[in-house]
Amino acid sequence: MKRYRNGEIWDFEHEVAVATNRPVILGLDGGTTSTVCICMPIMPFSDALPDPLPVLARAVAGCSNHNSVGETAARETLEQVMADALSKSGSNRSAVRAVCLAVSGVNHPTDQQRILTWLRDIFPTQVKLYVRNDAVAALASGTMGKLHGCVLIAGTGTIAYGFTEDGREARAAGAGPVLGDWGSGYGIAALALTAVIRAHDGRGPHTMLTSTILQTLGLCSADELIGWTYADPSWARIAALVPVVVSCAEAGDEVANKILKEAVQELALSVKAVVQRLGLCGADRKNSFPLVMVGGVLEANQRWDIGREVMDFISKDYPGAHPIRPKFA
Amino acid sequence: MKRYRNGEIWDFEHEVAVATNRPVILGLDGGTTSTVCICMPIMPFSDALPDPLPVLARAVAGCSNHNSVGETAARETLEQVMADALSKSGSNRSAVRAVCLAVSGVNHPTDQQRILTWLRDIFPTQVKLYVRNDAVAALASGTMGKLHGCVLIAGTGTIAYGFTEDGREARAAGAGPVLGDWGSGYGIAALALTAVIRAHDGRGPHTMLTSTILQTLGLCSADELIGWTYADPSWARIAALVPVVVSCAEAGDEVANKILKEAVQELALSVKAVVQRLGLCGADRKNSFPLVMVGGVLEANQRWDIGREVMDFISKDYPGAHPIRPKFA
Repeated sequence: MKRYRNGEIWDFEHEVAVATNRPVILGLDGGTTSTVCICMPIMPFSDALPDPLPVLARAVAGCSNHNSVGETAARETLEQVMADALSKSGSNRSAVRAVCLAVSGVNHPTDQQRILTWLRDIFPTQVKLYVRNDAVAALASGTMGKLHGCVLIAGTGTIAYGFTEDGREARAAGAGPVLGDWGSGYGIAALALTAVIRAHDGRGPHTMLTSTILQTLGLCSADELIGWTYADPSWARIAALVPVVVSCAEAGDEVANKILKEAVQELALSVKAVVQRLGLCGADRKNSFPLVMVGGVLEANQRWDIGREVMDFISKDYPGAHPIRPKFA
Repeated sequence: MKRYRNGEIWDFEHEVAVATNRPVILGLDGGTTSTVCICMPIMPFSDALPDPLPVLARAVAGCSNHNSVGETAARETLEQVMADALSKSGSNRSAVRAVCLAVSGVNHPTDQQRILTWLRDIFPTQVKLYVRNDAVAALASGTMGKLHGCVLIAGTGTIAYGFTEDGREARAAGAGPVLGDWGSGYGIAALALTAVIRAHDGRGPHTMLTSTILQTLGLCSADELIGWTYADPSWARIAALVPVVVSCAEAGDEVANKILKEAVQELALSVKAVVQRLGLCGADRKNSFPLVMVGGVLEANQRWDIGREVMDFISKDYPGAHPIRPKFA
């Protein structure tokens, strides 16, 4: 299906009874699980954003990471969620002055260029377009819009991203499950499943993870895990086992504790690599900088608090790192 | 498409001008890359197989691992290759007395039962059917048919499988890329790719793997590896980089050497787990047993010989392990 994008009518556009002419901007946060678009009025420029933000409309759609669902589906999701947000705010395309799109899977200038081309098919040249990795939006969500400091995301995947005040940037990890994102939710859970297999076939020590994971998944034996893994390649399905690993670690299981400790080191290492390359800590390593921490792996713990352990690790090297856990990430 | 399997005509069957009535057996070795079927006459039972084997016909098809291509494609590949072998030998279904099918992806009794059901749809109840993991065929290929000892396969994937003379069996690894088959070709190459990403983003040491792998893949920068990995999830495509890792290790690269040394330990550990569980080495750990070694990772090396290193590791614990590298695996 070839969508009609740059004529009078945009295929995704809803009819709006009485469209306002109030100029608006669209902000999108696109992830592997869901994509959110907000529509806001243009505001006079100032350092501080109003709190609460004057959001005219908010729309939600599914995955917009092209690495996960392919380019066609990612593009349609992005267009659909923008059209929904515009419709809900009583606006249409002609009111849009700028689009800021932060989406996971933007790893290379060619990814950025591809999405800019999609957007330019819809919006004329005077509309300002910004396309970035979703880590950039996560950082901004913790610093009220200012791009300075470092953000660590650890959900299903993980990435560290940093900016200096003079506009330099750097990232670490965020390379996907094959390429060693070992502190991610996927990474933690895959190691836990591996530990179960290794205990079962005699390559590794006995672990409480075996009974707990098999019970959680409704399986009878460790060798059924092989078929379970193959049945659905979704990373999020594997990563959903992180709370089981945490509960086993809290109950004293050594294998689970080792997995979490290694994840903490991996996550801290990603932040350190970014801070070091950008010199965010200054020459004496003591400068203050914001460290925004986002994602289920850093949040959803009880006694075993992965986020706090990561922060402890980082603070030893960089005492000026100032942790921020944003309200909306 | 529903194939017509158990009537007079089998959809896969070719017309044979003058079918012989000589009774035959079919032997299949099904892997993730290719599937081979041979058709042989029934021979008088004896301990020793004739050399060369009296093969009437040999047919080759693609992947028959249902975990890789799905059940429908795996089933059709198996049927097609059997029909081809029968046709080439001038036989048809009615001449078949036994089918011995050794295929990768048979990890659980339910896998075995599913394939037995497929075969029983084609062959009547008096035909003997045997369905096993392909590691069993690999062992038999090194011991001239006798199921005793241990086999280590290390190609794109890896598995260790063992049998005692009284019929007990055990396996280790062979659980696929998510579940820690770390000494496999896929495992080695994925760690090498990870090392390139980590060197690039500041999490790991500089390595010769960067320039060598990027040149091999025709890429300009390490961050292009992310897109390259996502573009095609085939394990074999990743595993094809093993010779690059070996050449970097031979040229003295520390990161590549560390990856290969860890792979050697992982592969040796799989064998040791099987030997230990079956007691193949006897109470004093000195009993002699055959260790069949198969697959590209164990074969295709020059100065850095992974297979020899694995054997050295195993011999320290089990001096009676007798390495065999079969002609046809």
